[in-house]
Amino acid sequence: MQIISYDLMKETLQDLFLACSLSGERAGICAGTITDSTFDGIFSHGINMVPGFVGRIRRGLIDIEAIPEKKDVSGVIEQWDGRGGIGIVNARIATDRAMEIAGRQGMGCVAMSRTNHWFRAGSYGWQAVNAGFALVCWTNTAPNMPAWGAARRSVGNNPLVIAVPHSETPVVLDIAMSQFALGKIKIHARSGELLPVPGGYAEDGTLTQDAAAIGSGDRVLPMGYWKGSGLALVLDLLAVLLSGGLSTAQLADLGEERDVSQVFIALRVPQSGDAAFADRAVRDILDDFHRAPPLKKGDRIFHPGQGVLERRERYRREGVPVAPALWKEILDLKSG
Amino acid sequence: MQIISYDLMKETLQDLFLACSLSGERAGICAGTITDSTFDGIFSHGINMVPGFVGRIRRGLIDIEAIPEKKDVSGVIEQWDGRGGIGIVNARIATDRAMEIAGRQGMGCVAMSRTNHWFRAGSYGWQAVNAGFALVCWTNTAPNMPAWGAARRSVGNNPLVIAVPHSETPVVLDIAMSQFALGKIKIHARSGELLPVPGGYAEDGTLTQDAAAIGSGDRVLPMGYWKGSGLALVLDLLAVLLSGGLSTAQLADLGEERDVSQVFIALRVPQSGDAAFADRAVRDILDDFHRAPPLKKGDRIFHPGQGVLERRERYRREGVPVAPALWKEILDLKSG
Repeated sequence: MQIISYDLMKETLQDLFLACSLSGERAGICAGTITDSTFDGIFSHGINMVPGFVGRIRRGLIDIEAIPEKKDVSGVIEQWDGRGGIGIVNARIATDRAMEIAGRQGMGCVAMSRTNHWFRAGSYGWQAVNAGFALVCWTNTAPNMPAWGAARRSVGNNPLVIAVPHSETPVVLDIAMSQFALGKIKIHARSGELLPVPGGYAEDGTLTQDAAAIGSGDRVLPMGYWKGSGLALVLDLLAVLLSGGLSTAQLADLGEERDVSQVFIALRVPQSGDAAFADRAVRDILDDFHRAPPLKKGDRIFHPGQGVLERRERYRREGVPVAPALWKEILDLKSG
Repeated sequence: MQIISYDLMKETLQDLFLACSLSGERAGICAGTITDSTFDGIFSHGINMVPGFVGRIRRGLIDIEAIPEKKDVSGVIEQWDGRGGIGIVNARIATDRAMEIAGRQGMGCVAMSRTNHWFRAGSYGWQAVNAGFALVCWTNTAPNMPAWGAARRSVGNNPLVIAVPHSETPVVLDIAMSQFALGKIKIHARSGELLPVPGGYAEDGTLTQDAAAIGSGDRVLPMGYWKGSGLALVLDLLAVLLSGGLSTAQLADLGEERDVSQVFIALRVPQSGDAAFADRAVRDILDDFHRAPPLKKGDRIFHPGQGVLERRERYRREGVPVAPALWKEILDLKSG
């Protein structure tokens, strides 16, 4: 593995995106978001997605100049048209706008149609907690897993973020509705290592931890079986109703995934006379959470976002490991 | 099983609650909500909870006269104090108020501290969709399952509802963060029937479908393992921050569960010039959902709320089966 520093990765990506004709500002936003995700240890939705992203820009599937547009206002809910623009840029704008509304009115919702893959869902949760807001956001996706009881992909894994601000230990939950990402299943299938819990069906219809036996996305498992399946469906329904955009089923007809629907709901934590209450409450709840003895001696119990903060600190200090072939591919991409 | 008609159950419960000194209005609301849940086939959170509820009223654990009170307004977020009142009555009032705010401003949130068990979470989702609103609501609970990796109960199962309105087929998701309710595990433990998927740990720490081997709530499984565990935690955090009320950990210190924290967020679906869009979109998404072939030939694929509507129709027509011992217990309760 090659060890890359934060600054080197960010500058390299910024140069690459400038070479793809992004504006300086947009190149900076994308490079910063992707570098941050990578240095949080979320490689799959950070640096690993760059070649695909550049390919989509070069094939004209993403409108790098599109400016998202407010279509409609319904109280504290705003409908925006992402106009096929850059997913990261659109999602950052939507999160900022939702917080702006919430800052004035307690809650704010931006529902965006026609936007693109936002890379790592959690990015926008961290954006919100860094500004002191709670955020609930999600995206729909093309069908990539079967509903509970179905024999083919019929719902999206529709990643969901719930982020809770705190001065020192914000909590950012970032979960897709599948038990495992397809990418993770493929990695386990190659290595032969069993999944830690059942992740899909074998060809005979039995649940299995053997990633190779799961084969395709038609047999991956929703998290919590019927529960994740139901959540995936209602997240798609709400994304469509709130944004006026396309549904998972409609995305299936587009070939490559684009024009997804996303929702960003920011919440301002009420202060009601005791500004320190929220910080103390989060601290107390987390302290109690960590007080439980682990099931396996020596194991640690992690709250959502804790691993991210620990990796962030280490990787920013030591640099992050990147496969030499991937790094070379990214360097080569610049020359097109 | 004894077959009880809708009217008989509702009148019987209303008389019982009047005998417990509830006002006529409150007796009617509780009897209606509990009868509705039972006739939706949700026995565990309908008629089965009545003896426990009456016991708590008679032991003075529920203040049957308490009127919830608005404590604070922060834009479209309102903090209410449930004042230890009847959980069903408080939750109905909170849902109505959240819809009132959303009707004017697009979204409305009522966060309520110091309230009591609301019986069936889905009741308030149905209340909202019947009025044409989407609703996200949840409650925290005393610790009743281990966080992922923990060896004792450390988080609540914090039931969550996401409800999407539709003129004919509203979708109401009602899920606790445990894979199975403790009550269901006990029923399987008695009958010896295996759970359909792993529901907890055996004493040696391995995942098991054998309900008897799971034993106690210290070894039940969060739905989706680390995912449901993380969701349970963030729902507790948000419930506390928004309501200013007690956390799951603090509820543990109270002995019997009371003074829980609940959140009700109503959303008005934007119309943006096409009033029929939402109804058509929901219909199309559900049609596609049901178009997938089932994994097991002859099985049906259910969307959240579909089974409820089917049972509702049948039970209201035919009456609902109730164990004679339970029905007798309820009749006897009236005389105290």
